[in-house]
Amino acid sequence: MDQHELRALLGAVANGEMSVDEAVLKMRSTPFDDLGFAKVDHHRGIRQGAAEVIYGAGKTPEQITAIAENMLNNGQKTVLITRMSGEAAELLSSRLGDKFTYHEIARVGIAGVMPDPWGDSTVVVATGGTSDMPVAEEAALTAEALGCRVTRLYDVGVSGIHRLFAHSADIFGAKVIVAVAGMEGALASVIGGLADCPVIAVPTSVGYGASFNGLSALLSMLNSCASGVSVVNIDNGFGAGYLAGMINHI
Amino acid sequence: MDQHELRALLGAVANGEMSVDEAVLKMRSTPFDDLGFAKVDHHRGIRQGAAEVIYGAGKTPEQITAIAENMLNNGQKTVLITRMSGEAAELLSSRLGDKFTYHEIARVGIAGVMPDPWGDSTVVVATGGTSDMPVAEEAALTAEALGCRVTRLYDVGVSGIHRLFAHSADIFGAKVIVAVAGMEGALASVIGGLADCPVIAVPTSVGYGASFNGLSALLSMLNSCASGVSVVNIDNGFGAGYLAGMINHI
Amino acid sequence: MDQHELRALLGAVANGEMSVDEAVLKMRSTPFDDLGFAKVDHHRGIRQGAAEVIYGAGKTPEQITAIAENMLNNGQKTVLITRMSGEAAELLSSRLGDKFTYHEIARVGIAGVMPDPWGDSTVVVATGGTSDMPVAEEAALTAEALGCRVTRLYDVGVSGIHRLFAHSADIFGAKVIVAVAGMEGALASVIGGLADCPVIAVPTSVGYGASFNGLSALLSMLNSCASGVSVVNIDNGFGAGYLAGMINHI
Amino acid sequence: MDQHELRALLGAVANGEMSVDEAVLKMRSTPFDDLGFAKVDHHRGIRQGAAEVIYGAGKTPEQITAIAENMLNNGQKTVLITRMSGEAAELLSSRLGDKFTYHEIARVGIAGVMPDPWGDSTVVVATGGTSDMPVAEEAALTAEALGCRVTRLYDVGVSGIHRLFAHSADIFGAKVIVAVAGMEGALASVIGGLADCPVIAVPTSVGYGASFNGLSALLSMLNSCASGVSVVNIDNGFGAGYLAGMINHI
Amino acid sequence: MDQHELRALLGAVANGEMSVDEAVLKMRSTPFDDLGFAKVDHHRGIRQGAAEVIYGAGKTPEQITAIAENMLNNGQKTVLITRMSGEAAELLSSRLGDKFTYHEIARVGIAGVMPDPWGDSTVVVATGGTSDMPVAEEAALTAEALGCRVTRLYDVGVSGIHRLFAHSADIFGAKVIVAVAGMEGALASVIGGLADCPVIAVPTSVGYGASFNGLSALLSMLNSCASGVSVVNIDNGFGAGYLAGMINHI
Amino acid sequence: MDQHELRALLGAVANGEMSVDEAVLKMRSTPFDDLGFAKVDHHRGIRQGAAEVIYGAGKTPEQITAIAENMLNNGQKTVLITRMSGEAAELLSSRLGDKFTYHEIARVGIAGVMPDPWGDSTVVVATGGTSDMPVAEEAALTAEALGCRVTRLYDVGVSGIHRLFAHSADIFGAKVIVAVAGMEGALASVIGGLADCPVIAVPTSVGYGASFNGLSALLSMLNSCASGVSVVNIDNGFGAGYLAGMINHI
Amino acid sequence: MDQHELRALLGAVANGEMSVDEAVLKMRSTPFDDLGFAKVDHHRGIRQGAAEVIYGAGKTPEQITAIAENMLNNGQKTVLITRMSGEAAELLSSRLGDKFTYHEIARVGIAGVMPDPWGDSTVVVATGGTSDMPVAEEAALTAEALGCRVTRLYDVGVSGIHRLFAHSADIFGAKVIVAVAGMEGALASVIGGLADCPVIAVPTSVGYGASFNGLSALLSMLNSCASGVSVVNIDNGFGAGYLAGMINHI
Amino acid sequence: MDQHELRALLGAVANGEMSVDEAVLKMRSTPFDDLGFAKVDHHRGIRQGAAEVIYGAGKTPEQITAIAENMLNNGQKTVLITRMSGEAAELLSSRLGDKFTYHEIARVGIAGVMPDPWGDSTVVVATGGTSDMPVAEEAALTAEALGCRVTRLYDVGVSGIHRLFAHSADIFGAKVIVAVAGMEGALASVIGGLADCPVIAVPTSVGYGASFNGLSALLSMLNSCASGVSVVNIDNGFGAGYLAGMINHI
Repeated sequence: MDQHELRALLGAVANGEMSVDEAVLKMRSTPFDDLGFAKVDHHRGIRQGAAEVIYGAGKTPEQITAIAENMLNNGQKTVLITRMSGEAAELLSSRLGDKFTYHEIARVGIAGVMPDPWGDSTVVVATGGTSDMPVAEEAALTAEALGCRVTRLYDVGVSGIHRLFAHSADIFGAKVIVAVAGMEGALASVIGGLADCPVIAVPTSVGYGASFNGLSALLSMLNSCASGVSVVNIDNGFGAGYLAGMINHI
Repeated sequence: MDQHELRALLGAVANGEMSVDEAVLKMRSTPFDDLGFAKVDHHRGIRQGAAEVIYGAGKTPEQITAIAENMLNNGQKTVLITRMSGEAAELLSSRLGDKFTYHEIARVGIAGVMPDPWGDSTVVVATGGTSDMPVAEEAALTAEALGCRVTRLYDVGVSGIHRLFAHSADIFGAKVIVAVAGMEGALASVIGGLADCPVIAVPTSVGYGASFNGLSALLSMLNSCASGVSVVNIDNGFGAGYLAGMINHI
Repeated sequence: MDQHELRALLGAVANGEMSVDEAVLKMRSTPFDDLGFAKVDHHRGIRQGAAEVIYGAGKTPEQITAIAENMLNNGQKTVLITRMSGEAAELLSSRLGDKFTYHEIARVGIAGVMPDPWGDSTVVVATGGTSDMPVAEEAALTAEALGCRVTRLYDVGVSGIHRLFAHSADIFGAKVIVAVAGMEGALASVIGGLADCPVIAVPTSVGYGASFNGLSALLSMLNSCASGVSVVNIDNGFGAGYLAGMINHI
Repeated sequence: MDQHELRALLGAVANGEMSVDEAVLKMRSTPFDDLGFAKVDHHRGIRQGAAEVIYGAGKTPEQITAIAENMLNNGQKTVLITRMSGEAAELLSSRLGDKFTYHEIARVGIAGVMPDPWGDSTVVVATGGTSDMPVAEEAALTAEALGCRVTRLYDVGVSGIHRLFAHSADIFGAKVIVAVAGMEGALASVIGGLADCPVIAVPTSVGYGASFNGLSALLSMLNSCASGVSVVNIDNGFGAGYLAGMINHI
Repeated sequence: MDQHELRALLGAVANGEMSVDEAVLKMRSTPFDDLGFAKVDHHRGIRQGAAEVIYGAGKTPEQITAIAENMLNNGQKTVLITRMSGEAAELLSSRLGDKFTYHEIARVGIAGVMPDPWGDSTVVVATGGTSDMPVAEEAALTAEALGCRVTRLYDVGVSGIHRLFAHSADIFGAKVIVAVAGMEGALASVIGGLADCPVIAVPTSVGYGASFNGLSALLSMLNSCASGVSVVNIDNGFGAGYLAGMINHI
Repeated sequence: MDQHELRALLGAVANGEMSVDEAVLKMRSTPFDDLGFAKVDHHRGIRQGAAEVIYGAGKTPEQITAIAENMLNNGQKTVLITRMSGEAAELLSSRLGDKFTYHEIARVGIAGVMPDPWGDSTVVVATGGTSDMPVAEEAALTAEALGCRVTRLYDVGVSGIHRLFAHSADIFGAKVIVAVAGMEGALASVIGGLADCPVIAVPTSVGYGASFNGLSALLSMLNSCASGVSVVNIDNGFGAGYLAGMINHI
Repeated sequence: MDQHELRALLGAVANGEMSVDEAVLKMRSTPFDDLGFAKVDHHRGIRQGAAEVIYGAGKTPEQITAIAENMLNNGQKTVLITRMSGEAAELLSSRLGDKFTYHEIARVGIAGVMPDPWGDSTVVVATGGTSDMPVAEEAALTAEALGCRVTRLYDVGVSGIHRLFAHSADIFGAKVIVAVAGMEGALASVIGGLADCPVIAVPTSVGYGASFNGLSALLSMLNSCASGVSVVNIDNGFGAGYLAGMINHI
Repeated sequence: MDQHELRALLGAVANGEMSVDEAVLKMRSTPFDDLGFAKVDHHRGIRQGAAEVIYGAGKTPEQITAIAENMLNNGQKTVLITRMSGEAAELLSSRLGDKFTYHEIARVGIAGVMPDPWGDSTVVVATGGTSDMPVAEEAALTAEALGCRVTRLYDVGVSGIHRLFAHSADIFGAKVIVAVAGMEGALASVIGGLADCPVIAVPTSVGYGASFNGLSALLSMLNSCASGVSVVNIDNGFGAGYLAGMINHI
């Protein structure tokens, strides 16, 4: 029940078409979201006019295709599909032709068209190594699907810190930075120490031995001695990209 | 070496007062920060014109007092002191009189005057229980010292979720929300599911048994199924308040 | 030695057919269970007149089939088979025809007929997301095999909390609730805060990154700030369904 | 807004006293709890007519006293105070005289009078060792404050298992059992293997070395091979007693 | 009910003094331990004719004194008291005079007289460092209280492995060895590699940093590449000494 | 350098055939093991006249075959091969015919003949469930290969504790007991509470969810409240069987 | 911008070809590494004139081949490729013929020629067991590619400690020792106790049960009671070999 | 038995003063260290002519004093005492006067005189923050006691990375670097990325929340993506300083 339906219901009560008892009954049995004060399917969709999201893991290619086509048919311009398998991509590609793009490394599909970025600000997505790219690309594509301008700084980890500093202009000019790193995850602290804007740290499961599938980077980032750094779950590129898009468009 | 010094040096080279060799040598041996592209003591200060910060843990009352007075004498209007002991507060109070306020529950001192908030937006700081208040107050006072308007929603945890919903207008109207909770840390997910703005989750060490000093809440918040949620370190109210202030004034 | 045998032995002593020494010897060497004070095979069977249970993991299709047929031949009306592979289901189906049903998502087989539910009360099984369904279905089918009426509330997690509230009548009317959730496991706390009945929380291994195969949800549920919540092992749908059935029929 | 207020509002709309716009505005800004579908302060009170609860940890003696007296003055017959310090007990005792009892080992205070137990059934509280008594007594007193008849079986751990078996009649006759144990926590499994009723396992932090403050017992209990066993947080006697009372009075 | 009582009961049945029904009732309600097939208070006492044990932790000096005197008065020659505080030792000393000895480093008291060792074999107790001595002495004194001859090899850790080898004759001549070590716990493996007899490894909480209160030594000992090594709980000198005594007197 | 060589060297010095300097040089550069005070290949062989052992993991079928044949050709009567793959078993079987037996469940091969047990005493190997059998059989076969008489008590876990008690005569009559259990590992404590002999506990990785691949059983066993219990590594049946054999033949 | 470019720029300023403003702008926007004070790609290359390194994991055979050929064509004499798959080795072998060697056990490839060792000193690489060889060989080949003389002492673990002592001359003569061990990792402490030179400990993931994929050896090595021992990541043979080469050529 | 004694013994055999049998017996029963091939008390002393070490933790002021005086009386010029309490320092100071210096922050005492550094090379000790100073000073003083020239770079952590770069000349000129840091421990990676020499990383327990007493920094340092970095135990300044001294004087 959205505001229009609520008004209609109240109007019906006002003009005697519906009794008070009926109205009480109907309101008690109507999902809260229809009352307008809760977000409709918030965490599964992105509703700033830019994109809808399908979380592809655990869905069959057929399911993904059906949902995506339904969204496009209902006027959605951009549909972002994360954790998408190659099989699902092939099926959707065969159905949508050039209205579908698959980013293999990020396992992200875009059905429809990517929106043009709006606003002047920039989201920077940086990685410690090339192995962190799948997670970083998931973040970058998510932010782009939300209408952000994204600058990618890949392989600028602290063991070759001059590469990071060569891009200091990008760091200083960003509105929000996503720092993606595995192993010791020091990138977030170094960037956090340089930048004046919010830094979203994404630990990745890249590493071996005592990296314990990302635990080392996660703890490192949580303990960052730099201010302005917050952390999302291990390998959660989508979460970081979504939050970056949110901050970028504030 | 700041930009002015660099210009002076280059000027000296231009007019023959300094040889190229001398200039190379001098530039190689000059600290980077002086070149102006790195932040000076960034993570220890807050430089949006609002406040300087002193991390009080491990500093003697005398050290804190000396630093704070030095800052005030140099024209700083607001000095925020976190993790400040009662002894340190007493000493500073005896020196500064009514130019010093101590918030005992948060163990935060304010030397000088709190800035008036600027801008229209609001930072919401919410807690699951009353035991989370020390951490929440550290976050709230930090944001206020940065010139933010702060709304406190304390004791709105998920076991009495109607109390949270009674404040839904505050949730929907916030520009950024700090969600502070111990035990199972579910508050962050519930708020993240309701709000459209960034949510900074702060796990606290409140709890007993298998809460493992905040680990339970930390993991819970990192795994939040709601989008737009990121996490800072356990009990890190300052970090959350600082980041919230940063986002609020974007 | 059951009570009848004990009486027979004592009778034999009383009428001189057996010496005291022989009786002592016999009693010392007789298994305790025969004395009647221990349950026979308690944890492998459900003996409220409703169902027997076979734990399918680690058993061959042939073994499962043999046990199930033996039970049915001995008059058992319902046999619940958990953790059953598709291969085992096929074999049993070929033997029992329509006297066998396989629930693929829960990997549960029912040989014989499901009992009609008895009593007026209802068991609610709720999940945070659709990925929690396999565990939830194991719980629901177990409760049904025990003669419970089960209401399923799936995908009512806290990030879209209005969906849960739309079913508040089910929550308030339940006699016992099974709350199944992975990731941050906040569902148990929210339901525990709403309901007046026992809540059995089942953490699932659903999630990624720092969910650590269900550890995050497990800790979260153990630390629930709501009263009336207890927890079973990760992914242990059977355990929760069994306990729910036990409470429902008290 | 409860149902009566909702009806009044809708009545006002129906008879033209309130415009639709006004009604929409009012409904959007009214706390949910007023709609009657959420429990008021559920997790802090016990409302089956038996007792109110005060969680004493972190409250001053004065605060506890004020709350308890207020409750008694408002007609509450029994007030249960958990995690109560000796100082708080002394203060309350000086105020209430013989209307207050303090159970030192459990750190539980009872203000007012303990209710007479009702119903025929019994709650059994069993411990592995005498060191588990504080937690067990918290559970037992909580259940008694809820009007339960409680049988205590203390020091019946598995290393002297005959002591447990000597009380098999109590085990078989219980409606619900609280099994409290530290160290290896095996008591829950043995009781779960014997009993036909729900068993609530409470791991305690009793033990040393690799017991890791209750982690060993917690894991042990979660992995119990017996059916009908669920677990609450380490040392959470109150939670177990509350749940036991809930099940006992179903 | 011991064997004599059982015989008496059966005799009463045999000669008609007791009816079969009465006998059944009596047998069903008699503690199992009385039937003679379970050990009475096994894990708290040592019953090979050598010593009784009191676990002193959590007992008041008065309680310990009362129990010890009661044991001595009942003819017990040796009473071993572990985890005994200095206060308790003083009280017992003032009561028993020279019939009491206190070993401060091990926090072990001996009331009565130490038995003379019997048998030809020897128990070796070895430590990695001097800091492991409290645990080692608890083990050694326990074994001596059980009538074992004990050879102490202290401070023979692997960083000065020649000191261990200087005692190779002791190692080769032992019937059972208790290896006590903290930090990296390598002593157990080295001794296990040299000796032909059972080695009982006791990890201690000695160490700092990543020793994690004995976890490092515990894991190290469990993973020993030498055969014949088994492990008891961290700092559990009594457990090791008791087991060593058991093996020594086989 | 063995004792004979040492004597020869000293003799050469005594009769002037070798200078002191040459002798010093030679002694400094001679391997220690030749001096006779270290065991040769102790931990890989069992040298009480019963069996040699090959640890099969990580060895090719050809390697295993070559080693086993070499041992048999050198007069070894029994060769025990642990962690042996089916492929290796097939190859060895094709070479040795009926002089080789493969125990599939334990993945243990016996080349040559099993020794007849000697001595009067018995080793009991008990398991909590049937899933623990592979580990238990590895222990039992190891003990048998060492000349022990072994009684197997399988599936006597604590959830059906009467089954264990039905075998109390075996428990009381054992010289040493190996208790093998996964999940909550309570079997070791219950047996330790009943028996008067050493109990070697083997945690297994059997279980799911929060059993964490045997960690739950491991911690449980280390924290056993029963005396006389020690623990080996998770799933280490060989280690337990070897130690049991060692104790049995003391 | 390297030193030559900096000089050119300053020269241009000196002779008026470039204005001060232009120079400031250019210097602010030039990558730092060009200034010559940061190492170019340090951690991916070894630049003591001996070898370049390619980390093979996550690279396709084609990528590896292209990089290696490019290096060789640019005059590099030795290219070390770690974590190299057999497929990649085959491809490179087909291209380079006898200018390529593949060490299968270490998964290391050498393109070009191994340098002759220089200097008098020796690096010792020791392992606890044969299963540690892959990690040890990675270390040894890395050191050899850096021009070190390497002595391999394999299978000298502490359970047969005489084998280690037989090589004491190698231990005493080494300039730096790499100690590679899994399971309990005691080798590092024993070697650290014998040697006077730096010992680099490499925990391996060899082991089972509670070795937790190398955690046991890692903790053990970190807690070594011997001085001069430091630790690298689990299975990080390359890191140890690189550091050993660095120290050896000091 | 040192070489001289060995020569004497062999001389006695050579000239007939001692029989071969007596010599064999004596050699078998003499501690190995006396044979000269094992280090005497290696890990407790530093024997490069510079200093002896006393580990002060767990020793009484009297014990420390006695040991130190004994060493000085035997000609030792420098005695380093780590983990020394203020009380012990006072006592030693009262005995030795100006021949004793106490470094309070590092809790290190120096009895006798500090050696003058020898050699041209330098050890750099760097810390992330001022709170890491106690550990860093322990490292620095240890290295100085070994005759090293030490450069201290304190408070150069990555959140203000320009401060580190301002000291790049020190970094590039060091022979070995000790990097001391808590929290996220990123300093080791950044220094490892800049330097060409061995870097010894020391995690400290500085931090809060999810730093878990140094675990975060420890894991971070073990996973360093820079080559040439190895790690010692948490807070183990002595170990790092000792190893640095060893490498510095190679």
